[in-house]
Amino acid sequence: MPVILFKPSQKTIDVSSGTELLDATHKAEVEIDSPCGGKGTCCQCIVRIIAGEVDSDSLGLLPKNAIDNGYLLACRTKVKNSHLTVEIPKRDEIKGGKFVEAEDDAFLVHQELLPEDVKLNPLTKRFKISVPEPQLEDGLADIDRLTRALQKEICEREIIYPLSIIRKIADIVRSESGNVTITAIEEKDRFNVVEVNSGDHTDQHHGIAIDIGTTTVAVQLIDLSTAKILSTRTDYNNQLICGLDVISRINYARKSERLEELRNRVLKTINNLIRQAAKNPQIKTDQICSAAISGNTTMIHLLLGLKPEYIRLEPYTPTILEVLNLKAGEIGIEINPEACVQISPAVGSYVGGDITAGLLCTDIANDSDEVNLFMDIGTNGELVIGNQDFLLACACSAGPAFEGGGIKCGMLAAFGAIEGIKIDRATGKASYWTIGNVKPKGICGSGIISLLANLFLTDWIDAAGKLNRQRKSPYIQIEDRQAKYIIASAEESSTDEPISLSEIEIENIIRAKAAIYSACSLMLKQVGLNFDDLANIYIAGGFGRFIDLEKATVIGLLPDLPLEKFKYIGNASLMGTYLVLISQEYRQRQLELAKRMTYMELSTDPSYMEQYTGALFLPHTDGFRFPSVQTMLKGEW
Amino acid sequence: MPVILFKPSQKTIDVSSGTELLDATHKAEVEIDSPCGGKGTCCQCIVRIIAGEVDSDSLGLLPKNAIDNGYLLACRTKVKNSHLTVEIPKRDEIKGGKFVEAEDDAFLVHQELLPEDVKLNPLTKRFKISVPEPQLEDGLADIDRLTRALQKEICEREIIYPLSIIRKIADIVRSESGNVTITAIEEKDRFNVVEVNSGDHTDQHHGIAIDIGTTTVAVQLIDLSTAKILSTRTDYNNQLICGLDVISRINYARKSERLEELRNRVLKTINNLIRQAAKNPQIKTDQICSAAISGNTTMIHLLLGLKPEYIRLEPYTPTILEVLNLKAGEIGIEINPEACVQISPAVGSYVGGDITAGLLCTDIANDSDEVNLFMDIGTNGELVIGNQDFLLACACSAGPAFEGGGIKCGMLAAFGAIEGIKIDRATGKASYWTIGNVKPKGICGSGIISLLANLFLTDWIDAAGKLNRQRKSPYIQIEDRQAKYIIASAEESSTDEPISLSEIEIENIIRAKAAIYSACSLMLKQVGLNFDDLANIYIAGGFGRFIDLEKATVIGLLPDLPLEKFKYIGNASLMGTYLVLISQEYRQRQLELAKRMTYMELSTDPSYMEQYTGALFLPHTDGFRFPSVQTMLKGEW
Repeated sequence: MPVILFKPSQKTIDVSSGTELLDATHKAEVEIDSPCGGKGTCCQCIVRIIAGEVDSDSLGLLPKNAIDNGYLLACRTKVKNSHLTVEIPKRDEIKGGKFVEAEDDAFLVHQELLPEDVKLNPLTKRFKISVPEPQLEDGLADIDRLTRALQKEICEREIIYPLSIIRKIADIVRSESGNVTITAIEEKDRFNVVEVNSGDHTDQHHGIAIDIGTTTVAVQLIDLSTAKILSTRTDYNNQLICGLDVISRINYARKSERLEELRNRVLKTINNLIRQAAKNPQIKTDQICSAAISGNTTMIHLLLGLKPEYIRLEPYTPTILEVLNLKAGEIGIEINPEACVQISPAVGSYVGGDITAGLLCTDIANDSDEVNLFMDIGTNGELVIGNQDFLLACACSAGPAFEGGGIKCGMLAAFGAIEGIKIDRATGKASYWTIGNVKPKGICGSGIISLLANLFLTDWIDAAGKLNRQRKSPYIQIEDRQAKYIIASAEESSTDEPISLSEIEIENIIRAKAAIYSACSLMLKQVGLNFDDLANIYIAGGFGRFIDLEKATVIGLLPDLPLEKFKYIGNASLMGTYLVLISQEYRQRQLELAKRMTYMELSTDPSYMEQYTGALFLPHTDGFRFPSVQTMLKGEW
Repeated sequence: MPVILFKPSQKTIDVSSGTELLDATHKAEVEIDSPCGGKGTCCQCIVRIIAGEVDSDSLGLLPKNAIDNGYLLACRTKVKNSHLTVEIPKRDEIKGGKFVEAEDDAFLVHQELLPEDVKLNPLTKRFKISVPEPQLEDGLADIDRLTRALQKEICEREIIYPLSIIRKIADIVRSESGNVTITAIEEKDRFNVVEVNSGDHTDQHHGIAIDIGTTTVAVQLIDLSTAKILSTRTDYNNQLICGLDVISRINYARKSERLEELRNRVLKTINNLIRQAAKNPQIKTDQICSAAISGNTTMIHLLLGLKPEYIRLEPYTPTILEVLNLKAGEIGIEINPEACVQISPAVGSYVGGDITAGLLCTDIANDSDEVNLFMDIGTNGELVIGNQDFLLACACSAGPAFEGGGIKCGMLAAFGAIEGIKIDRATGKASYWTIGNVKPKGICGSGIISLLANLFLTDWIDAAGKLNRQRKSPYIQIEDRQAKYIIASAEESSTDEPISLSEIEIENIIRAKAAIYSACSLMLKQVGLNFDDLANIYIAGGFGRFIDLEKATVIGLLPDLPLEKFKYIGNASLMGTYLVLISQEYRQRQLELAKRMTYMELSTDPSYMEQYTGALFLPHTDGFRFPSVQTMLKGEW
């Protein structure tokens, strides 16, 4: 078999001839960017063949002179029957892939933001019972005595024990005078035992809430005996390297070994985060006996190893919307393997469980005629509009910009992230503040919104997002005809490199906001409403600890409405997942919401492109839609 | 770490100092006999230290001169901090460990012997349904469409899918025009899907019945659409090398890694047999979607990896009697991992599921006042007496002799086994017949009974089982003061070695028959009955295709009663397991039988030893108990 030597890592691997080089890099664990998922459209997976022969089809995608110098796209290149030496060109360090340090990110869901009516009633419960000693006379096995004690003291239903519990029960009922802590799930007609410990451990009852975003994964460790959030951890989804959005991931997953790779990547992210979250309160991960997970339909398909292909192909039919009764061990979540995992139900291929979870944090579907809007601004933007009578959902593709993804100096809302910026109108100099009041490391979503709005209001960028090259400023640098704005110099930055935002990145952000705004207005148009008809607008997303709503209006991400109508609820998907974990009533409400919701396909509307193009300016081509922004631009602010 | 070199195999292994040498042999996969399970009582695991130092405590167990020559017991020897060279003395080939060839053993359960009232109604059923194509409009996922089709055509209950099925469903519902074969189990309130295939495979519905004996394991492949037995395979239990009886195995399992070893050994035997059984009708083992297993309580504990220790210790309490709801994949049975495994319920530590299975093949507990006896003659002998009003069970330890175990030339009832013998009164020469009419390879249980009875009736052995040394015969050989009887010469035998039975082996057989007979008469005594009060006696066991009942009476294994009262039902445990597999009514009957049965402890009866000692003769010290044998001995027969 041909052997490939990768430089500069010196890793080697044997592959059969015909193997795609991109697959070989993954197999050899050589890191390489392929944000489009190997479709040959992003031109990121560039490699150089130093020795050996390959079969490549990169012409037209890479310039001819690059190809002449041995550069190729790994996704368009197949190994032939010869040994290879392949160089992976040095590129900027992948910030998104780096693990966010444990202490960095306890910001995600604040208990104070949670609904007031939550009653602690988790699916999994803990009980203390006492099991009598074995007797020759009664002829009862260990399990029989435990069952009788449970049926007498707790629940008369049939008791179901998994094999792992049966294996350890003999010693447990014979220690601590037969005092036993049972963790179990009560169902209609049965009582499923999840864990058995000797002694009384009813106060050590933990669960984990997991939110799987396309870009960001967040977990939260919960004390299920008090509903207290013990710790929160976030990290970029380790799948990012295989494609930035769901469509790229679906494309990437077309080979079954790549589907398995994506599954393992997200599990790696999740299990790392769980270990980190359990480190500080020092909880053994195998004593976490309950879990709830939310994610969009593609993320859940990839987590479960379900072929996502049909999500992308007409008629866009996923394998499953409502997943029931899975155990952590089956999925690969490294907590107690018998733990029941509640997965938030999806509505369709493009409206997933993250939305049905997020809606739990709103009053959108409660007893009122008032029409409310829920906006979840993630890599996919999802919108839900409704009241007690109707619930409509739609989705649009925004990209990861508002989570700091796909932006060189972007980062998650963690220690060192610039979260707010002011611009000096005369000099263009930025003054900023960071999470944790430390030297800046990068910029998170709320900082990006703040930056863009202030650059626009101070006339350093125009309505098309172009930096003002007429006004001289040391903070605007032009290199290779590309302009970029310097937020912080190398000396100020904790990374010893300047923190900047390029015009191309600004374009990406404008495209993202345009997608979301135009989807909102199109959806309203389709139901015969205006923005003014909305009573409340709930905004969810991974921007940071807060979002400057006024500035979000300035860039035209949000409609120009009285600020009191907006409610920023942060990572609503994670918060809703928390609610599901601690309350069966919320779980029930979520299942009902999912059934009530109707999915609208926006892209089939003929005015879709028109709406989107109109929104590709700051704040919008139609100034009348943003009267207060016009006032700001004219006058003092 | 010390390195051990084993001779003559030249296998080497690293172990930490302090390791028991017996463990090291198993770890190095060096075959060594330890029938007592490492207790130091059988003195079989003899090794010789050629080089290096060990810590041994074999004195008193081995003669001093043996120890002086370097011989030790592996179970009494620990590795010190020095490299070792250890010789495993050559011993007779372990016949029991050899795999019985595929074609050899289709004899075990004859369909003609099955009860007449069996209605085909297996737990697992197959259905053909048609799943509509995906539609954009209905918003139904693949699983939703499948569920609706199932609920409409088959069963309105909640449908439960395991993750492995969810993973493959997308492609299945999109092929063969949506025609799908579902294998599923209907429960009270739910419908558990076990397998989904595309197309119509309702006629390919298979199950496997497994009987795990202490000595012998048997499996049977069943066509669940017709109840036809497709193939039967048997082999010695691969655990044999770790102890001949259940107590030795329990002792052996005291270390947790040895429990795991025992579990893996029996799984290896079972999975080998399943592959063999599936070879001839060419069935893919992962398409076997149903299983039923019977075994004594210890065998089931070992199969499931449950600590068997408490079975042996007062008050003899097992972990579990009735195991429900396990899947093949959890246990390690290599068929479809989602297949439900029905395990026969046990009554107590010494009356297991093999008995509740075996009773299904009898009328013992049916609507009659007549008292019947069920004898299962295996390594443990189990006895059940009862009628419509009572059911009493007891157990005794017999050893593996009647299955050919623990006897040099013993073998299972397979091709080449001597199953019947006549002895020339004058010369002592044996004439015999074998299964398959081929050259003899060894002797099975029925042959052993026939041989012993005929040697006794022709005066070649006495009532104590000693060979008659006064009468000269070339068929009696004496070596080292040990006498043995030559059944077949090396030339006659297919193994090129003579087939013989030694006096020590005869003693073992007499002890086995004495244990069984004395347990029978003690149990009858305890309920105030005599042998004459019995209407029917059902005899089960692994003797072979048949048992010569008259000869079994001659040696005093069976009581001296009119022959028409006896019914030989062969491997009743396997047959009962088959009944459970094909009929839920039989499964229900079995669960009820287990609940009705009462366990009697015989060993606490003060007359136990007296009964046993009296039975240690051919046929018995009390000749009046065997009047017809007396007649035979006096007169013509």
